[in-house]
Amino acid sequence: MTNTIFDFVGGKTGEWKVIKMTTIKGDSLAKVTHVDKIASTILQCFQGIWSLKGITSHLHYTEKTEKEKLVSIQEDLGRQKATYAALIPIRKNDAWWNLAQDERRKIMENQSQHTHVGMLYLPAIARKLFHSRDINEPFDFLTWFEYAPEDEPAFNELLKHLRNSEEWKYVDREIDIRLKKE
Amino acid sequence: MTNTIFDFVGGKTGEWKVIKMTTIKGDSLAKVTHVDKIASTILQCFQGIWSLKGITSHLHYTEKTEKEKLVSIQEDLGRQKATYAALIPIRKNDAWWNLAQDERRKIMENQSQHTHVGMLYLPAIARKLFHSRDINEPFDFLTWFEYAPEDEPAFNELLKHLRNSEEWKYVDREIDIRLKKE
Repeated sequence: MTNTIFDFVGGKTGEWKVIKMTTIKGDSLAKVTHVDKIASTILQCFQGIWSLKGITSHLHYTEKTEKEKLVSIQEDLGRQKATYAALIPIRKNDAWWNLAQDERRKIMENQSQHTHVGMLYLPAIARKLFHSRDINEPFDFLTWFEYAPEDEPAFNELLKHLRNSEEWKYVDREIDIRLKKE
Repeated sequence: MTNTIFDFVGGKTGEWKVIKMTTIKGDSLAKVTHVDKIASTILQCFQGIWSLKGITSHLHYTEKTEKEKLVSIQEDLGRQKATYAALIPIRKNDAWWNLAQDERRKIMENQSQHTHVGMLYLPAIARKLFHSRDINEPFDFLTWFEYAPEDEPAFNELLKHLRNSEEWKYVDREIDIRLKKE
């Protein structure tokens, strides 16, 4: 069975060295020098200065034509040249979670063009979404991106797009952790 | 914080006595005489003959007008007169999970009228959906229903509707466990 559960452990050692840690909104996380991304289980709990658990899932908003396009151009995590990464834990507010599926989809796609904008930066930026909300974690999502150092400006541009979107008005906690493979 | 994680423990003791246990499709579960529904955590694990973990979440397919209607007429679990219950663990096949969000929604609502049919039996049948797929459990969903003994024929009719639907063609494992409050 493919592992779907991961712990992101911030501490003094780890595969990924922290370059910069910025609190964009809400409470910060304790500063750490390293982050480890560990295939885990729901029952396991890793120590460290902090540890965030997330679960991969199927795509909850993507429609058929978008999904086919995504699958055809996106690249997997773990590419040799992708020595830079970003871990961006995000929480959305109650107003978001009280919306119905069609309202959330409308904000994500019609107004924020989440999938459309993300696709402009494929295949350079590989990404994976980990769900945390339903397992009582402090964040709703852990977003993980991997890219080559020369694609960092493109990644910053992608983030700028998303943070200016209608969808992002519902984000009430966000930490931006930039990493470099050791 | 409201508890969102539950363990359904089948064994020799428990709040709910098993009236009947029927394997509808796929591998069966070991026969038990009782089931306990316990507010749990992601890290806890209860013993018993078997134990199924599920997590409540927001509604993943329901649209705004349907949601408003649901909220206005559905009743909560734990009503005094609802001394009968059914625990129906379900798994859907890969063909289902490989569909995109809009395709799944189309099958659920346009072709199977999942929400529409369910609403015909409100408020008599109270229900709650627990998600298990993303936490590597043997089932994708644990569905839990509570009703008064006199509403059992209506509940059986609701199940017949669902099992004959387009959506149910994707179900490859289903156990029907009927319970009575002790």
